[in-house]
Parts: sequence; C-alpha cells; structure tokens
Amino acid sequence: MADVSMPLLVTGSIGIDTVKTPHGASERCLGGSSVYFTMGASFFSPVRFVGVVGDDCPFDLAEVFKGRDVDLRGLEIRRGSKTLVWHGTYHENMNDRTTDLIELNVVQEAPPKVPEVFRDSKFVFLANTAPSLQIELLEQVAKPVFVAADTMNLYINGYLDDLRKLLGRIDCLILNDEEARLLAGHSNLIKDAEVILAMGPRIVIIKKGESGSLMCSADGHKFILPAYPATEVRDPTGAGDSFAGGFMGYLAHIGRTDFAALKTAVAYGTVVASFTIADFSLAGLTAIARKDIDKRLQMLREFTCF
Amino acid sequence: MADVSMPLLVTGSIGIDTVKTPHGASERCLGGSSVYFTMGASFFSPVRFVGVVGDDCPFDLAEVFKGRDVDLRGLEIRRGSKTLVWHGTYHENMNDRTTDLIELNVVQEAPPKVPEVFRDSKFVFLANTAPSLQIELLEQVAKPVFVAADTMNLYINGYLDDLRKLLGRIDCLILNDEEARLLAGHSNLIKDAEVILAMGPRIVIIKKGESGSLMCSADGHKFILPAYPATEVRDPTGAGDSFAGGFMGYLAHIGRTDFAALKTAVAYGTVVASFTIADFSLAGLTAIARKDIDKRLQMLREFTCF
Repeated sequence: MADVSMPLLVTGSIGIDTVKTPHGASERCLGGSSVYFTMGASFFSPVRFVGVVGDDCPFDLAEVFKGRDVDLRGLEIRRGSKTLVWHGTYHENMNDRTTDLIELNVVQEAPPKVPEVFRDSKFVFLANTAPSLQIELLEQVAKPVFVAADTMNLYINGYLDDLRKLLGRIDCLILNDEEARLLAGHSNLIKDAEVILAMGPRIVIIKKGESGSLMCSADGHKFILPAYPATEVRDPTGAGDSFAGGFMGYLAHIGRTDFAALKTAVAYGTVVASFTIADFSLAGLTAIARKDIDKRLQMLREFTCF
Repeated sequence: MADVSMPLLVTGSIGIDTVKTPHGASERCLGGSSVYFTMGASFFSPVRFVGVVGDDCPFDLAEVFKGRDVDLRGLEIRRGSKTLVWHGTYHENMNDRTTDLIELNVVQEAPPKVPEVFRDSKFVFLANTAPSLQIELLEQVAKPVFVAADTMNLYINGYLDDLRKLLGRIDCLILNDEEARLLAGHSNLIKDAEVILAMGPRIVIIKKGESGSLMCSADGHKFILPAYPATEVRDPTGAGDSFAGGFMGYLAHIGRTDFAALKTAVAYGTVVASFTIADFSLAGLTAIARKDIDKRLQMLREFTCF
C-alpha cells in the first residue's frame, strides 16, 4: 500500500472535561472532538488541526501531540475568552450519559479561521458544531476530495435547513443511531440510511455504540461491523470522535475512498475507539502504538469474517 | 464440500400461535420451537422430529413438511390431550413482546419418547423446555457427536441445578442476551460468555436480536455477526428457533464442528432467521429455496467482511 498521505484537516472543539463513570472519575482533563479525532488520526496520517481555546486553557497541545505529525498552526488561543467546559456522567450500562454542566464559552463566539497553508487540504473532517459554521469552515478549503461531518440532535431539531445545506456539500455523514432516527424518522436503520443518502452525502455511517456501526453508500453498498469485543471499558468519552479519526486518518493515508477502502477505514475507526474507551481522557490512546492497532484489526477480522 | 449429512434430531414444541405485530396479525397458525427449527434445518439436512401434540391439533405436519426430508416417526398425537396454545403481541420496536396467553397443555405432561430408530442420531438440538426433560430426552440418544440446547429465564431462575447438570452434558448453549446476563451476571456479554463456558459447554451462542449474535468457544475463539440487514420485518416469532435450525442443519450436513464450520453455521442460521421474520408463521420460510439462502449468505459475507 503506497503511503500517499493526502493532507487531512480537522475542525472541532477543545474542552476541559470532567467525567464520572461507574469505573472512576477524571477531573478537568483534556477533551473535545478535535482532540480525540486528532489523536486517533495521528496513528495513520499527518493532521492539520483547527480549533480555538480561551487564554485560560490549562493544556499545552504542542506537548500533548509531541512526537505526532500534528500541525497546530490552526490552533487559536483567544485572549479574553474562556475554554469550553463539559461535565458528564455515564450510567451503569455505559451507553447513556448525562451532561451535568456545559459552558460553551469560546465555542459560541466566532469560529477559528482555517490558515492559508491548510487551504489545500484534501480530506476534511468537520466535527460536531452548528451546520452553518461547518459550512463556513468548509468554504475555506479550496478543493477537498472527501469531506465528512458529524452532527447531533440539537442541530437536527433546531437547524434542519442549515443541516440540509451542509448535507448537499459533504461526502460522508457520521452520526449515531438515535440521531439517524431523528433525522430520517424510521425504526429501521437501513431505511434511515437510505433517507439520509437521499439528502446528499454518498456515504452515511450510523454508530450504534456497543452494537458497532453500519455504513451505507448511495450506490447500494452496505457494511455492518460490530464493536470490538472489549472487556475493558472505563470511559466512553471520545469514542465517536476517535472513531472518525481512525476512519479519516486511514483514508487520508491511502488516498482512496472506494467502498473496500471505506470498509477497512471503518474497521480501523472501530479499533481506535476500542482503545479510547479503555481509559479516561486520552490515556487509552497515548498508551498504544500503531502496531497495537494493527494487531487488534487482525483480531477483529478473525472475529467477524466467515 | 462432501455431503456427509449426519443424522440430526430435534426435540421441542409444536404450538397453535396467535400473533399480533404492528404489521398485522395471524390467528391460530402453526408455531412451536421444533417446527421452526425443522423448517430451517430442512434446507440443509434430513431432520428427525420428536414432539407431541394433543388430538385437537388442527395441523397435518406431514403436509406441512411435504417435499422436505423430515422423519415424523417421533411425532406423537396424544389422545385426550390438548395442544400448546400461545398468544403473543410484538410492540413498536419489534424486539419486545408480551405473552397474552399460554396454555401449556400437553407440553406439561410426560415428554414424547425418542423412537428407537432415532437413537443413533449424531447431531441433537434440545429446544427450550425444562432442563430435566432436556436431559431425559438426551439420555435416549446413544452417542451424540454435537448437542446444542436452548433455555430461557424461567429455567435459569427456577431450575438452575437442573440447568447446570444439562450444561455439563451439552456441547453448545444457545440463548439470548437477557438470558445470558441472568445466567452469568455481567453487564458485558464477552464476560458472560466466559462464565457460561466455565459451566460446561465448549460453545456458547448469545443472540442479540437485531444486533446479531456472538459465539465464543472454551478454547478462546470468538465470532460476532450482525443480523442480516432486513428491511422487511413482519413477525419475529420463530427467529431464534429457525436460527438454531439453520445452524444445526448446516453442521449436520457438513459433519464438522471446528470453529470455521461453526462460524459459517452461525451465518446460515442468521440468514434463515432473516427469512423467517419477513412474514407470519412459516410463510417466510416456505416461500424460499436453498438458493435464496445461499445468495443472502454471500450478501452477508460482503456486508461484514473487510
């Protein structure tokens, strides 16, 4: 496999997270969609990072991503602003969570700019934010080859027109099963996927937590992959974003987006997420190397293919 | 693949079912675990059928299984007894169901006998009934090669000692996720599977409804397969029993139970169940031929392998 490594851009949040789960707690640790995405993608491909924090941010992202090929020229430290704060609690089954506190702070101000040197990016991931901002960020990229985006209930309920505009401009929507039902309105996820594909993207990936994920394409391909059978689950935070990181990182690395490549990318995303949830914050991802991911990918293949 | 077709025996119930689902209703139709099992298995292998009905039974099983290699010499029509009656309603999500009425009738009397000519059976499926009866039926088979059994909450809660005896004598337990949690007590199905394997069987299969199934072996192999992505689901009754039928029918046909064979058998069971749920009673299975099953198996492989 040739290492073509097309430039991969991510836009998303950086947060100060406080998380409680039945297995422990972590206070004021580093979180946020772009952080988890970048950590996951960095095993596969260089990452161009776009995000904004306030000048109260206690984390040095250059230190966090040290030794990884992460270009932080898109990180803005905004003076006089405060960093996103999120407090969440996971319940017994580790699927349901409650947001105890959210202070959007700098996230509800003007979005960061995509630096000039990032505008030739070919693979783009627009993490979860208002669809109008996702469009604004995407418009700063000259000729993207493959654009994926995440969304959530808030925007499906309240910003559907903007979301529909976004769906007309992206290649791939990644969302969870609850969001897919809300957006498409069926009780059957295959039907939901078909409805979402008719809104614009050629690929939709529906994440089902511990039941894995479903990917459908506008030309009729389907892929269904269970979650990696992890027995160690301490903190599910960041599972979805690091899934997207593994998925997009692999695609950018091989520079292809045919369905066979997309299937392997979903498998890599699944494996990356399985490491994320094994520990709090980024500890599950910083503890491993690419060879651990490849080993688990082979296991996943053995577990699922017949 | 050589057609060795080892003799396959099933013991289980025959019922008069009345089923309501959000997609329609079916009154006093043929049901029961051994009926669904046999219909599913008959696509792969001859089946030896053991079961009992009352003399009120409105169904002619010879007619039902006409054209299939089903030996009904183990079917007893008991004079003065009444056939099992079950009324059930499936709710909106098609996973949860309510039992509106159950009249056990002949099922709570003495079990049927395994005919002398069936006692050399090599593959045996003991459908869901009291574990003491499952043991009694199994003891009538001389030298089985591979024995699988189903169980349910009622027996896990109330007959655990008997169930543990049964688990020491069978090769494979098939149960659903709720039953696995009840029997093993974890919130993680992989851990549940390990606990159940420690009770005796070398294989455990945990069915997760629309999320597919998980198979684990005592020597550490795992297989995770999603449900076939069926968009047509009218009546889930018999899904589990016809799954077991496809699974055991395929194994009896190839005469092997190594893990590779077991994986393909689970895939066949999954496909058979996907046809069962497409229509009421046996209509989904009587509408198809083996070639339809093989075609869908190839599709399932494409949907799941990467």
